[in-house]
Amino acid sequence: MSVSTDPLEPPRLGEPYLLTPGPLTTSFAVKQAMLRDWGSWDDDFRAMTREIRRRLLALLGAGAEAFDCVPMQGSGSFAVEAMLGSFIPRDGKALVLANGAYGQRAAQTLRYLGRAHAVLDKGDYLPPRGAEVAQILAQDPAITHVVAVHCETSSGILNPVAEISEAAYAAGRKLLIDSMSAFGAIGLEPAQIRYEAMVSSANKCIEGVPGFGFVLARKAEIEAAEGNSHSLSLDVHAQWAALETTGQWRFTPPTHVAASFLEALRAHEAEGGVAARGARYARNRDVMVAGMRQLGFETLLDSRWLSPIIVTFFCPADRNFEFSRFYDLMKAKGFILYPGKLTVVDSFRIGCIGQMDEHVMRRVVAAAKETLAEMGVASAAPPAAALKERAKLAA
Amino acid sequence: MSVSTDPLEPPRLGEPYLLTPGPLTTSFAVKQAMLRDWGSWDDDFRAMTREIRRRLLALLGAGAEAFDCVPMQGSGSFAVEAMLGSFIPRDGKALVLANGAYGQRAAQTLRYLGRAHAVLDKGDYLPPRGAEVAQILAQDPAITHVVAVHCETSSGILNPVAEISEAAYAAGRKLLIDSMSAFGAIGLEPAQIRYEAMVSSANKCIEGVPGFGFVLARKAEIEAAEGNSHSLSLDVHAQWAALETTGQWRFTPPTHVAASFLEALRAHEAEGGVAARGARYARNRDVMVAGMRQLGFETLLDSRWLSPIIVTFFCPADRNFEFSRFYDLMKAKGFILYPGKLTVVDSFRIGCIGQMDEHVMRRVVAAAKETLAEMGVASAAPPAAALKERAKLAA
Repeated sequence: MSVSTDPLEPPRLGEPYLLTPGPLTTSFAVKQAMLRDWGSWDDDFRAMTREIRRRLLALLGAGAEAFDCVPMQGSGSFAVEAMLGSFIPRDGKALVLANGAYGQRAAQTLRYLGRAHAVLDKGDYLPPRGAEVAQILAQDPAITHVVAVHCETSSGILNPVAEISEAAYAAGRKLLIDSMSAFGAIGLEPAQIRYEAMVSSANKCIEGVPGFGFVLARKAEIEAAEGNSHSLSLDVHAQWAALETTGQWRFTPPTHVAASFLEALRAHEAEGGVAARGARYARNRDVMVAGMRQLGFETLLDSRWLSPIIVTFFCPADRNFEFSRFYDLMKAKGFILYPGKLTVVDSFRIGCIGQMDEHVMRRVVAAAKETLAEMGVASAAPPAAALKERAKLAA
Repeated sequence: MSVSTDPLEPPRLGEPYLLTPGPLTTSFAVKQAMLRDWGSWDDDFRAMTREIRRRLLALLGAGAEAFDCVPMQGSGSFAVEAMLGSFIPRDGKALVLANGAYGQRAAQTLRYLGRAHAVLDKGDYLPPRGAEVAQILAQDPAITHVVAVHCETSSGILNPVAEISEAAYAAGRKLLIDSMSAFGAIGLEPAQIRYEAMVSSANKCIEGVPGFGFVLARKAEIEAAEGNSHSLSLDVHAQWAALETTGQWRFTPPTHVAASFLEALRAHEAEGGVAARGARYARNRDVMVAGMRQLGFETLLDSRWLSPIIVTFFCPADRNFEFSRFYDLMKAKGFILYPGKLTVVDSFRIGCIGQMDEHVMRRVVAAAKETLAEMGVASAAPPAAALKERAKLAA
């Protein structure tokens, strides 16, 4: 078996591309790094943990020196819960900015934790704006923290975290960011955008496999977080303290996943870091969206709000179109799509992240064209209700 | 690269054997199952999740039909916390039976959760006995649940869960078992030993790689657990409800780890199930302990208390013996040992689980003999204090 170092090598074994927001298609080299066992207590693995933490911090860019990195076992939502439970003190109050499933999940997490919170609910996809945040903070002095979702993959919108940060700190509050699906491809330099902590996970824009997330937080916040957490497992301060004193994760780490993530971080650097990764994904999006629009598909969002992570398309109005059949036929052609999450009109999503480039995206569009023909769908145009929905954002 | 189906194939790439209680040495086939990417939403992965749940339930043996299986992302301790937070109601009270780090960790978890609890602390290794449990339960009617550790890897002792179960249910209380390092090699049939729920993880006696744990619990307990959990991520009821209605894990599963675990479950069955796995480990232990005793090493525990999972040895009294050097020299020979956890005297541990058989264990003993000679250790006999310590258990 040859070891390929081509970062855009197609998947082996005829497996389909995952056009999803993670788990995503990873390189063979990343998976191959899982072909040995590591003792989690041993020096060799501790050195890997150190390198992972150092490399993640470096991705923050300017301002990283005030931060530290705490990996956390579990899915991304575990890391979000760890951040919320560790950094929002028990007598704090959060303002959750929600425009989709992940903002709603943050609010649900705070309900579990018994932490006071308010929710600015913008519905399926409308962005929370800085002026709205400023107004709510002015009206509610009890709010200590603002919780924002960087890229809300429910719709694929890239939320305006810069203006949200400005509003939060202008009012003397703190910002926590769920940058799950954006970090590594979209810059979040503390020197540019002020915040206390952010989370992401291994299986997003760094292109590792799923199994853990990580918190990047100001050291001062981590040090002050002792005793806040509602959970032993999800205590960011305790995990950090163990890493600092022993070099080990407190509890068994997903050793193979960590080894593959280190490989992914090295490949990320070799590709050119955050800027290059983001540029490839943006090109993926541009090529794919242009092609889909040529087929008559319409995006939920205007181009200015489209993230380079994932894009929501309206389902065609044509009565021959049925998403589950479209999904199956696209899968048979080697592409796994993602169902939509809009509550008002039918939609589906196509991810732009993972080991894919514009050539793959052109094949996606060609497969979609072929599939429409197979289904007897004459036009991919959405129903009138969808366009009316979209007009809300423009307004 | 050839695909070996030999379940006891030695590790590749010259990597050392992990003589640790997990992460452990896995087969190459198990690791090779991680060489592709899976969409967590896709039918193919849902089918894998179904098969994992079905196979784990089958390992329970007689009485399994009243149980269900809920996988949980994170390390084993995450699964323990999920079990405690989900099944002990907020107005419940637990009696934690502690004789090592994992019992202590269960108590620490309950402190985080704010759940009332009492601790029977037996120190470093003395077993909690049924009669003691009965006495405590008789004196404290507020206790609703007993929490026991099946194999306490701090010392390697196999705790007497059968008599603990009898005491608990004779007093009308419920039993929760941390069977992390024992399940899959030591029987825990509900028809033999009554309990409400138990947890284990992927990287123990099933010989998968680390990344998730699982809860096996009575369906009635799971159904009654709604609203108990302190944590969204660790809510066993919510995870189960999602699995039942959608076939998916609620949040991103560690897809590659799950794929390899399924391979490990199939190999476990092919080897002959729980009995055969346990027999191989017992043989590993017997061969290794006999060889080490011939070198003059002494075990902490009498043979009757030795688990087939991991064994604690006293460090030799010889002043030329230094564990860190012993560790390094053994690692150079291809064997990664595990440090001890006794608070009174120096010790180290050797694990018996993973892709190893008695031939490997003979090589471990030979390597230990060679290492003692290199270190100039004339006798592996422990200090007098160690033997005095051991006499406590016999008493």
